[in-house]
Amino acid sequence: MGKMNVGIIGVGRIGRVHAQSISNNIPDVTIKAVSDVRLDGVKEWAKGYGIENVYDDYHKILDDKEIDAVLVCSSTDTHAQISIEAAQAGKHVFCEKPIDYDLDRINNVLKEVEKAGVKFQVGFNRRFDHNFNRINQVTKDGVIGDAHIIKITSRDPEPPPIEYVKVSGGMFFDMTIHDFDMARFQAGCEATEVYAVGASLVDPEIGKAGDVDTAVITIKFENGAIAIIDNSRKAAYGYDQRVEVFGSEGSIEAKNDTETNTILRTKEAVSSDKPLYFFLERYMGSFVEEMKQFFEAIRNDTETPVKGIDGLNAVVIAMAAKKSLEEGRPVKINEIV
Amino acid sequence: MGKMNVGIIGVGRIGRVHAQSISNNIPDVTIKAVSDVRLDGVKEWAKGYGIENVYDDYHKILDDKEIDAVLVCSSTDTHAQISIEAAQAGKHVFCEKPIDYDLDRINNVLKEVEKAGVKFQVGFNRRFDHNFNRINQVTKDGVIGDAHIIKITSRDPEPPPIEYVKVSGGMFFDMTIHDFDMARFQAGCEATEVYAVGASLVDPEIGKAGDVDTAVITIKFENGAIAIIDNSRKAAYGYDQRVEVFGSEGSIEAKNDTETNTILRTKEAVSSDKPLYFFLERYMGSFVEEMKQFFEAIRNDTETPVKGIDGLNAVVIAMAAKKSLEEGRPVKINEIV
Amino acid sequence: MGKMNVGIIGVGRIGRVHAQSISNNIPDVTIKAVSDVRLDGVKEWAKGYGIENVYDDYHKILDDKEIDAVLVCSSTDTHAQISIEAAQAGKHVFCEKPIDYDLDRINNVLKEVEKAGVKFQVGFNRRFDHNFNRINQVTKDGVIGDAHIIKITSRDPEPPPIEYVKVSGGMFFDMTIHDFDMARFQAGCEATEVYAVGASLVDPEIGKAGDVDTAVITIKFENGAIAIIDNSRKAAYGYDQRVEVFGSEGSIEAKNDTETNTILRTKEAVSSDKPLYFFLERYMGSFVEEMKQFFEAIRNDTETPVKGIDGLNAVVIAMAAKKSLEEGRPVKINEIV
Amino acid sequence: MGKMNVGIIGVGRIGRVHAQSISNNIPDVTIKAVSDVRLDGVKEWAKGYGIENVYDDYHKILDDKEIDAVLVCSSTDTHAQISIEAAQAGKHVFCEKPIDYDLDRINNVLKEVEKAGVKFQVGFNRRFDHNFNRINQVTKDGVIGDAHIIKITSRDPEPPPIEYVKVSGGMFFDMTIHDFDMARFQAGCEATEVYAVGASLVDPEIGKAGDVDTAVITIKFENGAIAIIDNSRKAAYGYDQRVEVFGSEGSIEAKNDTETNTILRTKEAVSSDKPLYFFLERYMGSFVEEMKQFFEAIRNDTETPVKGIDGLNAVVIAMAAKKSLEEGRPVKINEIV
Repeated sequence: MGKMNVGIIGVGRIGRVHAQSISNNIPDVTIKAVSDVRLDGVKEWAKGYGIENVYDDYHKILDDKEIDAVLVCSSTDTHAQISIEAAQAGKHVFCEKPIDYDLDRINNVLKEVEKAGVKFQVGFNRRFDHNFNRINQVTKDGVIGDAHIIKITSRDPEPPPIEYVKVSGGMFFDMTIHDFDMARFQAGCEATEVYAVGASLVDPEIGKAGDVDTAVITIKFENGAIAIIDNSRKAAYGYDQRVEVFGSEGSIEAKNDTETNTILRTKEAVSSDKPLYFFLERYMGSFVEEMKQFFEAIRNDTETPVKGIDGLNAVVIAMAAKKSLEEGRPVKINEIV
Repeated sequence: MGKMNVGIIGVGRIGRVHAQSISNNIPDVTIKAVSDVRLDGVKEWAKGYGIENVYDDYHKILDDKEIDAVLVCSSTDTHAQISIEAAQAGKHVFCEKPIDYDLDRINNVLKEVEKAGVKFQVGFNRRFDHNFNRINQVTKDGVIGDAHIIKITSRDPEPPPIEYVKVSGGMFFDMTIHDFDMARFQAGCEATEVYAVGASLVDPEIGKAGDVDTAVITIKFENGAIAIIDNSRKAAYGYDQRVEVFGSEGSIEAKNDTETNTILRTKEAVSSDKPLYFFLERYMGSFVEEMKQFFEAIRNDTETPVKGIDGLNAVVIAMAAKKSLEEGRPVKINEIV
Repeated sequence: MGKMNVGIIGVGRIGRVHAQSISNNIPDVTIKAVSDVRLDGVKEWAKGYGIENVYDDYHKILDDKEIDAVLVCSSTDTHAQISIEAAQAGKHVFCEKPIDYDLDRINNVLKEVEKAGVKFQVGFNRRFDHNFNRINQVTKDGVIGDAHIIKITSRDPEPPPIEYVKVSGGMFFDMTIHDFDMARFQAGCEATEVYAVGASLVDPEIGKAGDVDTAVITIKFENGAIAIIDNSRKAAYGYDQRVEVFGSEGSIEAKNDTETNTILRTKEAVSSDKPLYFFLERYMGSFVEEMKQFFEAIRNDTETPVKGIDGLNAVVIAMAAKKSLEEGRPVKINEIV
Repeated sequence: MGKMNVGIIGVGRIGRVHAQSISNNIPDVTIKAVSDVRLDGVKEWAKGYGIENVYDDYHKILDDKEIDAVLVCSSTDTHAQISIEAAQAGKHVFCEKPIDYDLDRINNVLKEVEKAGVKFQVGFNRRFDHNFNRINQVTKDGVIGDAHIIKITSRDPEPPPIEYVKVSGGMFFDMTIHDFDMARFQAGCEATEVYAVGASLVDPEIGKAGDVDTAVITIKFENGAIAIIDNSRKAAYGYDQRVEVFGSEGSIEAKNDTETNTILRTKEAVSSDKPLYFFLERYMGSFVEEMKQFFEAIRNDTETPVKGIDGLNAVVIAMAAKKSLEEGRPVKINEIV
C-alpha cells in the first residue's frame, strides 16, 4: 500500500486541526478532499494546504473511489449517519467524539462498520497524550501493581457561552465524556456503577440552563478499581488536566504541561508557568498521534487504538452519571444498557 | 497566671508524644503527673522527663489541686468517662480523637464540659500542620475565592495488624476520621450528605474482618463545596498526605513533606525523597503546635482551636459514611443526628 | 514577496533537520535544491520532501536565480568560503556555527555580507529555545533587575568518538561555543575577561588527545555581570541543559525538559523523567524557530536575530578560554582581538 | 559517663541558639554556667533556661571543675585565646567559626588542643544540614561515582549593615567561609588552587568599604574536582542555599527548604513558597545536630565531626580567594601556607 488519500467531512476547528496534523506530520497521506455545509473561507484555507477538492456535499467524498478513509468532523448529530454511509461506501472511518447521544444509533454505526469490514476509530485524543499514555504504559507493565484508585482532575479555563451550554447535551456529554474514556482507558476494564454529584457554582446561568458546572463523579470498575473525576468549567489559573493511578505497588501521576520549565523568583513569589491554555495547546501532540495511529492501523490492517466500543461505553457512563445526578443515587451500568 | 501543671492520663505512644512536645517546647507548662493502667517501663520513661508522680489510677491526677489541665490519652473507650470526670474536677481537658463512637456519650461530654466552664480540645492535630494550615489561611483570606472542590489524599504506608483492625471500629473511625475533620476544617462549614465506596483490595483478611482498606468518600457541604477523600491502608511508597482546595479564583495544594529536598540523578532515574514515613515523622510539628495552642487558650481564656463540636461532627460524618457503604447509597447527615 | 526558495548546502544531520523544519512548518518557503559532496542516499531522502534538485556542486545552487537564500550546513572548514560566495551571488545566508575558527576569515565573511547587503544569520539555535528565550524576555523586561550572575549548566549525555575529538578543534569550539553565545545572549553585552579551568575526568583518551572533557569557565561582562559555565562531556543521566540568571530583583531559572510530566512513586523511589536525550530531542523546537525567524527577517527586511557579530564574538570567547586553560590565568578579551 | 556539664562563653545570638538546642534536645547535658562581657538581660534569659551561674568573666567557667566542655561563642578576636585557655583547663572545646583570621594563632590553638588531649569542634553547622548531609552520604556511598563538579549557590537575603561590613574581615571570611568549608566537605579532599572574581553590584557603599557583595569563586581540588561558589549579599527572594555535586555516575542536588510544601495557583501565577528567610530558620536543624554530635564525640571518645584542621583550611581558602581577587589571578594554596 503506497500513499493513502483521505477526505475530511466538516472542517470547523477540529477538522482543521486534523488537516494540519496530517499535512505536517504524515507524509504518505494526502488530503484529497474536504467538505463542509458552510464554505465561507474554506477554499482559501484548503488552498494553503494544497487540498484539491472542496465540496459542500460530503457524498462527493464518499463517491470518490480514490479516497481510502474519511474523518467525520461534522456536527455531532450527523456523526452516526455519515459514519454509516462512509462504512457502506467502503471507507475507513475516523469519527469525532461522541459518536452520538443515542445508544441505538451508536450500535447501528458499530454494526455497519463491522459489516463493511472497515477500520473505525473514535476521537478520544487524550489517550495519545504523552503523559496519560505513559501512565497507561507503566500501569500495563505492572510497575504499580493492580490499580486501586484512579484520579482524574479535568477543569476548563472558562465555561463555554451559555448558548452553547443549552445545546451541548450537558457537561457530562460535552466535557466529562473525555474523562469517562480516560477512566476506562486507565482502568483497563468496564465500569459497573456510577455516582455523580454536581452543582452550578461557577455561573448561575448554567444552573438555570439545567446544567452543572462543577461535578465529582465516582465510578466503580469490574476489577475493583475506583475512579474519581473532578470537573470544573472554570479554573482561574487555566486548563487543569491531571491524572493519577494509584496501585498496589505504587502510583503514577501526571502533572500539567507548561509552556516553559522556568522558575521565576522575586520578592513577591517563587512562580512557575500556568498550565497550557486550553485543549489545542495542551493536546496538540495527541491530535497528531491519533492521526498517525489511525492511518497505521489502516496500512498494517491492525486494530485501531480507540474502537467503536470505546465510543459507545463512554456515552453509557455519561448516561449513568446524568441519571445519578438527577436521581441522587448511584446508578448501575446495567440500568442503562 | 504563671506556670501551669498538666497531668497526662495514658502514656502509650500518643501520650508520650505530647509529653515530649510539652517538655521540649513549652517552658511554662510542667508535667506534674502521669497515669497509666500498665506501669511497665513508665517510671523509667517518666524519670527521663523529670516527671514527679506516676500513678496507676488517674483519679489521683484529678484529685491533685495543683494540676490545671489533663490530657486524655487513654484507650478510646475511656475517653468520654475520663473527660467528664476531669471537667467535673475543674480541669481543662485535651481529649484524643475520637471522643467516643456513641453520639449520646459525646454529647454528654460536651454538656459536662460546658457546665464546668473548662476548656476542651480534641486531638485533631492535622489542623496544625504547616501545609494544611497554610491552605486554611489562604482559603480564609479569600485568595482562591469560594471553595468548590476539596480533595484529600490520605494513604497509610501499611495496614495495622489484623487483630487491631477487628477492634478498631472500622477504617472510617480509625483512619478516615482525621480526613473527615480535615474536610470540615477546609470547607469551613458543615457536611450535608455523604457517599462512600469501599473495597478490600489491599488485604483480603481485612475484608473478612468486615472492614475495607480502600475507600473513596464524597461529601457535600452546606456552602456547595464538594469534598473527595481517597484512602488506602497501604501506599507502597509511604505515607501519602496531600490536600487541595480548588475555588472560584484558584487553588492551593499541599504536596507531601520529605526528609530532604534533594534530587538524585543517575543513569536509572531522576529521583527525590519518598514521603516522610508515618504520622509521627510527618505530623510531629503539628503535635507540638496543638499542645501550644491548647495551653495558650487556657492561659488567655480564649476558645480552643478544635472544639467539642468538631469531635462530634467528625464522628457523625464517619457514621454517615459507614451507613452509606453498607447501604450503597448517599446518606444525609440529618439521617444520623 | 510571495513564496521564497531556499537551497541547502550540505545535507548531513543538521541540514536535514533544517529541511524537516522548513517542510513541516514554513509553508511559504520551498526547498528548491540541496547539495552535498557525498550523494549516497541523498536523492532518496530528498524525494521524500519533494525537493526538485540534488547537486554534488553547491555552485549550481548559487547559480540558480530563483533561489533567494541558502543554508550553509557543510563542514566547518567550508563555512566561510561558501558564505562569501553565497553573499556575492546575492543570496541571504544562514550559516551553521561556528562560522570559522579563524578571526580574519570570519571578518571577511562579515565584510562580504555587508557589502552584498544580504541577510546573514548564525545557527545559535538555543537562543530560540522556549526556556532560554523566556529567561531572556524576563530579563529584558526588567523583572529581575540588573543581571549579576549568569549560570549555565551544559553537559552532554556522552562524549563523541575519540576520532571526532581529535579534529573537533577542542571542546570549547565544538560544545561550549553554544554556552559562550548563551552567556552573551543573556548578559546582553560583551565579555571582557575569561578564566577557564578544565580537566580530563571522563575519559583519559580525551586528555591524551589534548582536550578536556570537564570544564568550568568564568566570564566577566561589561555590565559587571559574571557568568559561570560548567561543562561535562558525560552526564550519566542524560543531556543536562539549565540556565539561571540572577539579578538585583530576583532570578529566573530554566530546568531541563522531559518527555513527560509524570511522577512515579514506588517502594524504591519517587522518580521523574530523565532529561530529553540529546540536542535533537531537546532543541527541535528551537531549530524550527530559528528557521522561521530567518525567513521572517528576509521577508520583512528586518535584522536577523543572530548576526555575524554573534558568530564572531562567541569564537573570540572560545579563544580566550582556550588560552586561559593553556596559560592558567584569566585572559582579557582584548588580548584576543 | 553520666550527665555532662557545659559552660557557654558568649551568649549573643549564636550562644543562645546553642543553649536552646541543648536545652530542648540533649537531655543528658546541663548548661551549668554562661558568661558574657555584657550582662544586660542575660540573667533573665538564663533564668528561663534554668541556668545556675551567670558570669562576666569566662575564667570562672574554666575554673569550675564540674564543667566538662565549653562553647566558645564570644567575638571572633577572642576565639583563639579562650580556646587555648579552655584546652589547658582540660575542657572539651566547641569553637565558633572562624577560629581566627591568623594562621599562626589557629595553629597555636590546634597545638594546644592536641597537647591537652581534649575534643575540639568548629562551628561549621551546615555540614549537619539534612540536605547537604544527604549529598555527602550519597557521594561517599559512591552512588554518583567520582565527584567532578561541585556547585554551591549561597546568597543572603540582604547585606549586613555597612558598619558591620567594615569590620567583618570581608565577605570571604564572614560569609563565604561556610561555602569554602562546604566545598571541602563535599570534595572530601583538599583544595589546591583558588580563583575569585567579585564586584560590588548590590550596594556601592560596600565597594567603597573595600569589600565585594557579589562573587564567583572557582576552586580546584586534589582529586580533580572543580568547585564553583556563587555568592550575593542580596537575593531579593530570600536566602538561597543550594548545592549540587556532579559526578561520573550522576548528580545530587539540594534545593531550598521552604516553610510549607504548598502550591498556589491563581489567575496571576502558579507559585510556591520563598526559601526560609535566613540562617536561623534555614539551619536550625543543623545547629541542633552539631551540638548532639559534639557531645556524642565527648561521651564516646570518638573524633569530632568538624576538626581543627577544617577550621584552619577554610580560612586558608578564604585567604587564597582574597589574594586572587586582589591580584586578578588564580592563587595556589601553597602560596598561602
